[in-house]
Amino acid sequence: MQYILLNNRLVPENEACVPVSDRGFKYGDGVFETLAVHGSVPYRFEWHMARLKKGLQVVRIQCDVGPLREQCRQLLKKNALKDGVLRIQVTRGTGGKGYLPAQTQATTVIQTAPMPDIPAAPVSLWLSSYRKIPPQALPVQYKLTQGMNSTLARMEADDNGCFEALILNQDGHIAETSAGNIFWLKDKILYTPALACGVLEGSTRATIMELATCKVREAEMGIEVLASASAVFITNTLWKALPVRELVPDGQRWQSEEASRVFRDLLIQDVERYRRTHGAAW
Amino acid sequence: MQYILLNNRLVPENEACVPVSDRGFKYGDGVFETLAVHGSVPYRFEWHMARLKKGLQVVRIQCDVGPLREQCRQLLKKNALKDGVLRIQVTRGTGGKGYLPAQTQATTVIQTAPMPDIPAAPVSLWLSSYRKIPPQALPVQYKLTQGMNSTLARMEADDNGCFEALILNQDGHIAETSAGNIFWLKDKILYTPALACGVLEGSTRATIMELATCKVREAEMGIEVLASASAVFITNTLWKALPVRELVPDGQRWQSEEASRVFRDLLIQDVERYRRTHGAAW
Repeated sequence: MQYILLNNRLVPENEACVPVSDRGFKYGDGVFETLAVHGSVPYRFEWHMARLKKGLQVVRIQCDVGPLREQCRQLLKKNALKDGVLRIQVTRGTGGKGYLPAQTQATTVIQTAPMPDIPAAPVSLWLSSYRKIPPQALPVQYKLTQGMNSTLARMEADDNGCFEALILNQDGHIAETSAGNIFWLKDKILYTPALACGVLEGSTRATIMELATCKVREAEMGIEVLASASAVFITNTLWKALPVRELVPDGQRWQSEEASRVFRDLLIQDVERYRRTHGAAW
Repeated sequence: MQYILLNNRLVPENEACVPVSDRGFKYGDGVFETLAVHGSVPYRFEWHMARLKKGLQVVRIQCDVGPLREQCRQLLKKNALKDGVLRIQVTRGTGGKGYLPAQTQATTVIQTAPMPDIPAAPVSLWLSSYRKIPPQALPVQYKLTQGMNSTLARMEADDNGCFEALILNQDGHIAETSAGNIFWLKDKILYTPALACGVLEGSTRATIMELATCKVREAEMGIEVLASASAVFITNTLWKALPVRELVPDGQRWQSEEASRVFRDLLIQDVERYRRTHGAAW
């Protein structure tokens, strides 16, 4: 049996529930993190906690993230998770009048899941009919539990036989996919949309920008720039770097596999380095 | 004791809970309706059901709204609600891989609440630093359980001693408040932002547009037009029409009470008419 840690209480997975009055349920009023667990170690745990803490501050949810580390350790042991997913969600909890919250007690949910299937071959992107929620409307660089834009875009991609959706921002600039960041290579320079485009400040995005041996530029550009890209790949902490083969129905195609592998290998090396340097604590 | 109808099951209010795996909790993946109950009759019930049905279709949540009428009737009787609030929420339920839903069973939650305190005096609006989520990102004309933009704007207004927030869209045009639509009068013409501005298609907005005896125009305009308005008021089904006295920190002020009362009276007459014509069924 798998367990969930709900407000620091171990609960069998199929019994974990929250009040319907929780603002997480009523309004999607919360923040979450998804971590990859490799060899029983949650990769870049500190980085995720720092983003979670900042996100909670920005949306003004009171929650001390300090105790989450020990709670995660406890749950990973309990569920004997070796390789998989660790998800931490914090919502504002119950209380308030309509949209105005009261002094609420945050709800924390920590859960694990098996590693999802990751496509082995290069993937297709569907050019979404939805645009991204702009950073002027929500602090979208954090993982907010406001997932309807991603859900609708992902469903549309799936309807069209594509693995993921490419979502543009209001200015028509490339932003990200429903669940990942995007990169492209052109003239040996690696490009990824700037945070000002309204993209998630993804952990894998940050790692690639840190480790890449080529020049990296943050861009505010439309899809026409992809026509001359030599490779396109999408990233999140579960996929690492997934090569993209085409943009549908736009028609652009790339041979992304070889170039993506370079970055995927960098990430896999970093996972190993992280396990060596941080693994003992877990 | 008050009850909640959770998936057509009567549950004591403090025991009603949903699985943490519900997409309503994980992603705010749902739609809701808030109805005013006057003299035991949920005002404009059919209108709300039509909007709910359309919203569910647009976000592709499978749920037959037909049985909700009898369920609401049952709950109103059980909770002996005479005057108050009826809230109906439908989420996509549990299932799927990340953002991509599976064939899920929707979750329905029906609950009642006492009528909230409505300000007796004209209210102040805070000019929000947040912009609205554009309709290109989400079908915002429906009441989605994506309430973080409204929550953040409402908290900021409260910090600044204002009852509500005035939220502009990405183009700098007047959109709506965190929980209501806005109207203004100028030269005996009533204006309200067009749906293209990214506003909720509010029930009270629709009723006023239907019943107003003056000309009504849907506008895409910035706050500078409010300088020459003779009155400003905000609407939702609980407030009806609330006069606005000032926009902070912009500094504009209005004598909105008398003109707002005309529209409030229209709405109160409509409530009475609705009860006469539809009350027997409840």
